[in-house]
This record gives sequence, C-alpha cells and structure tokens, in this order.
Amino acid sequence: MSEPSSKRQKTEPPEITLVYWPGMPGRGEHVRLAFEAAGVEYGDTALQKDCVDKVLAHISDKNIGDDFSPPPFAPPILRHGDLTISQVPNILLYLGPKLGLVPENDPNGVYYVNGLALTALDGLSNEAHDVHHPVATTLYYEDQKDEALRKAEDYRNNRLPKFLGYFERVLSSEPSKGGEYLYAGQLTYADLVLFQCLDGVTFAFPNYIKKVRDSDKYPKVWALYERVKGHERIKNYLASERRQEYSLCIWRNYPELDEQP
Amino acid sequence: MSEPSSKRQKTEPPEITLVYWPGMPGRGEHVRLAFEAAGVEYGDTALQKDCVDKVLAHISDKNIGDDFSPPPFAPPILRHGDLTISQVPNILLYLGPKLGLVPENDPNGVYYVNGLALTALDGLSNEAHDVHHPVATTLYYEDQKDEALRKAEDYRNNRLPKFLGYFERVLSSEPSKGGEYLYAGQLTYADLVLFQCLDGVTFAFPNYIKKVRDSDKYPKVWALYERVKGHERIKNYLASERRQEYSLCIWRNYPELDEQP
Repeated sequence: MSEPSSKRQKTEPPEITLVYWPGMPGRGEHVRLAFEAAGVEYGDTALQKDCVDKVLAHISDKNIGDDFSPPPFAPPILRHGDLTISQVPNILLYLGPKLGLVPENDPNGVYYVNGLALTALDGLSNEAHDVHHPVATTLYYEDQKDEALRKAEDYRNNRLPKFLGYFERVLSSEPSKGGEYLYAGQLTYADLVLFQCLDGVTFAFPNYIKKVRDSDKYPKVWALYERVKGHERIKNYLASERRQEYSLCIWRNYPELDEQP
Repeated sequence: MSEPSSKRQKTEPPEITLVYWPGMPGRGEHVRLAFEAAGVEYGDTALQKDCVDKVLAHISDKNIGDDFSPPPFAPPILRHGDLTISQVPNILLYLGPKLGLVPENDPNGVYYVNGLALTALDGLSNEAHDVHHPVATTLYYEDQKDEALRKAEDYRNNRLPKFLGYFERVLSSEPSKGGEYLYAGQLTYADLVLFQCLDGVTFAFPNYIKKVRDSDKYPKVWALYERVKGHERIKNYLASERRQEYSLCIWRNYPELDEQP
C-alpha cells in the first residue's frame, strides 16, 4: 500500500489488491472509495487481465485457503501481503485505521463507524439488491419480476424512508459533531459507504429519489452525499475511467420497480 | 461486566446489558451465547419488566442518541457504561477480546473471525429470515407465502448447501488448526455464531437438516455443532430458563417451507 504523494514510505510495504468482478461498481466499490478518498494506490483485478478467473479461483469450492487465511466465501476480497480477507465491512474495518478513515485516539469510534457502515450496507445495499432478486440470486430478474414488483413497493414506501430517516437522525446526533459527517465531524469510511449506497439507490430509483430530494425531508443526508461527491479525490475518481458504470450489479434500474411518474 | 468466579475484579466495572426483544432467541442470541460461553454476568432486557418499552425507546424515530453514541437502528443493542452499540457482528467484535473469544497475540485473527461470523450471519441468519419474509418484514408470513415457498426451495437446494460446504472447507483449512473450531484451533465467537445459526436452521428445516446430517456430507460442520453444544457452560445455558424457545423470530418452522418427507 503506497501513497502517491510526498508521504510515500521509503520501505515499500506489501502490495494491496482488491479482488472483485469486472464491469460494475458492485460491493467492490466500497473498498475502491476508501482507497481513492485516502489517495492510496491499490491493485484492482477489475482492471486486470483474467479478472474472472482470479475471482473464481478464490471462491472455488476446491479452495481451502492457505497457511494464513481461511478461504473467502465471496468477493470483494482484499489481498495484503499474507492476508486474504473478505466481507465489505470487514475489509473496511481493516483498512479504516490504515487509510485515516476512522478517528484517531478514539478507541470506541471504530465500533460506531463499523455499526453505521453495517446499517447502511444492510438497508441500502443488501436490501436494494434483494428488491430485484427477492426469490433467488441464481434466477434471472425476469423470473422473479412479480415478487420484485411487490418488494419494490415496500422498499420505496417503508424501508427507504426508514433508513434515510435513521441517517438524518445520526447526522443530528451529538457524536456527529455538527452533522457534516456521520461521526466525529470528520470523513470516515461510514460516510463513503453511505455516499455509495445513496448514489446506487439514486441510479436504481431515480423518480423516487427525485421526489424525496424535492421534499427536502432529509436535508443532512443529501448534504453529506454532495459533500462526499465534492471531496477533491472522490470527485477526480468519479470522473476517471476507474469509476465503472452501473450495470447488472447491486443497484439496477428497472423502471417498473421505481415510483411511477 | 463481572465474572461469577474467583476472577471477579475488585473494582466493579460498569454493568453490561443486552437490549433485545423478549420471548425469542432471535439475533440477540448471538450476544447471549458469547456471554454464556465466557461465564460472564450480563443484563438482558428480555428478562426484565418493560422490556418492549426499553427496546422501543432505543429505536424510536425521536431518538438522536446521547453525548457518546449515535442512535442505534435496531436491536440487538449493547449498553456498556457510556457505550451504546448495535449490529450483531459489531457487538461481537467489541466483546470478543473482552470475553476471550478471539485468539490473543494474533492481530489479524480478529479479521478472520469477524469475516467468518459475517458470512454465517449472512447465509444462515439473514437469508433464513428472508425465506419466510421475502417481500416485506411489515407483512405477515401468510401474505407472502407464495413467494416464501419459491424462496424456500432455492434456499434448501442452493444456498444452504453452499454455506454448509463453505464452512466444511473452512474447517479443512490450515488456519483452523485441525478443524475442531473455525479458526486457530480454539473457540471463538465465530463458532458460537455458526452453532446458533445451525441450531436455528435445524429448527426451521428439520426434514432437510435430517437428510443432510444422514448423508454425512458436512461431517466437520456437524461435529463443531455438537462440540459447541457440549461445551460445559453452553450446555448449562441451553438447559436453563435463560435459553428461550424459538417462536416468531429469525428461524421459524413452517412445515410447508421444509423438505417434504
């Protein structure tokens, strides 16, 4: 892990690589945004040859891990020296202190940041995925469209408002220190996760999100979204070729699942 | 947090309490099992008067947290001194080192244990819940039974074998140190989570699990299950009144969702 700046260390630490599918932001995007916000160089299999083979080797049902790490269940996977770890919130927990994305000298802060990231992932990533795949990940959307239509209605009417309202309250809490960021008045990986989740649901449910933003019901949430989006390094990343377009991943735009105009 | 043994500290540390719904194991059970395995005393709102009011106060949409902690989204919630944290894997991450349920002197061990716990929770707790509630948590099971029947078939045929096979591989990995436990040859909170998840799916899908166990396809997984179940303190806990019966929580037994005999 090396910083492309004057802070670059003299002894090169082991290379660090994200192992994830090519051609979509997906769950790997939470890891990319952490590296990008910190301005730290990282490998990304999505931009490498034989990406799919590399991912499949890690999650093969023949893989029993190595001397150091148990096998991962699914991507995203982080390789750092001898370490192979998986699960988005786990990777961010590992990277957080290394990338300056958790508060220093605040031993409990890591649990608050981790809890907020887990909640954003639950409600705005995992549930957003289940909206278009309520029956089985192994079936096509078209084979579970009736179920998806029902679930999408509940998601827009009940779940999205519940999660947006929750994060508005977090941004009104004393520990947010003014509500610019979720915790401790500084950018943490929980903000990056929430930004990506909000960006994803905006792609998936544009009519619904436009209505919500016009209503001005969650002003702090959307101010945070714009704040992260305007962060110098994040802005550059989003404009770069490294940021991939949404496609058939967690956040999908099926117009019939969105609010009807 | 005090140990009911000769190790009891002279200066009483702050009380520690699990805030969770009454009358069911649910997601709170993962936290209870950690305390019980360590033999550490803890408060449990499920056994207190006004439990529901206590839980509702924490997750009220008026709650904006306190001076130290952002508001929690949902139970289980851990109260420890000034700290209020939520999300099962986050609570276990906090308790793990305090209860001796992660390996000592192994700085990377916490990421392996956390990753394994997250995977068990994903596949055998969250997905097990979604089988009977594929459309909306706010609707009754009976109002989403058709969808549940479809999802249950996929869960039994594809998802459960995938997760059971995964943990069998983890128990065959070098870092498991012999396969008695998931990691480092010792009981960690990941084993307790996996035990509870296996116990839950056994309650929910008894015919399917009987078939699986008779097939002897995942011998290390079920040996771990029996090993944790036979752990002195866990055995006592399971026989005690503190262990609550399964009811309308994560793991539910609807015979029509199980393998048909």
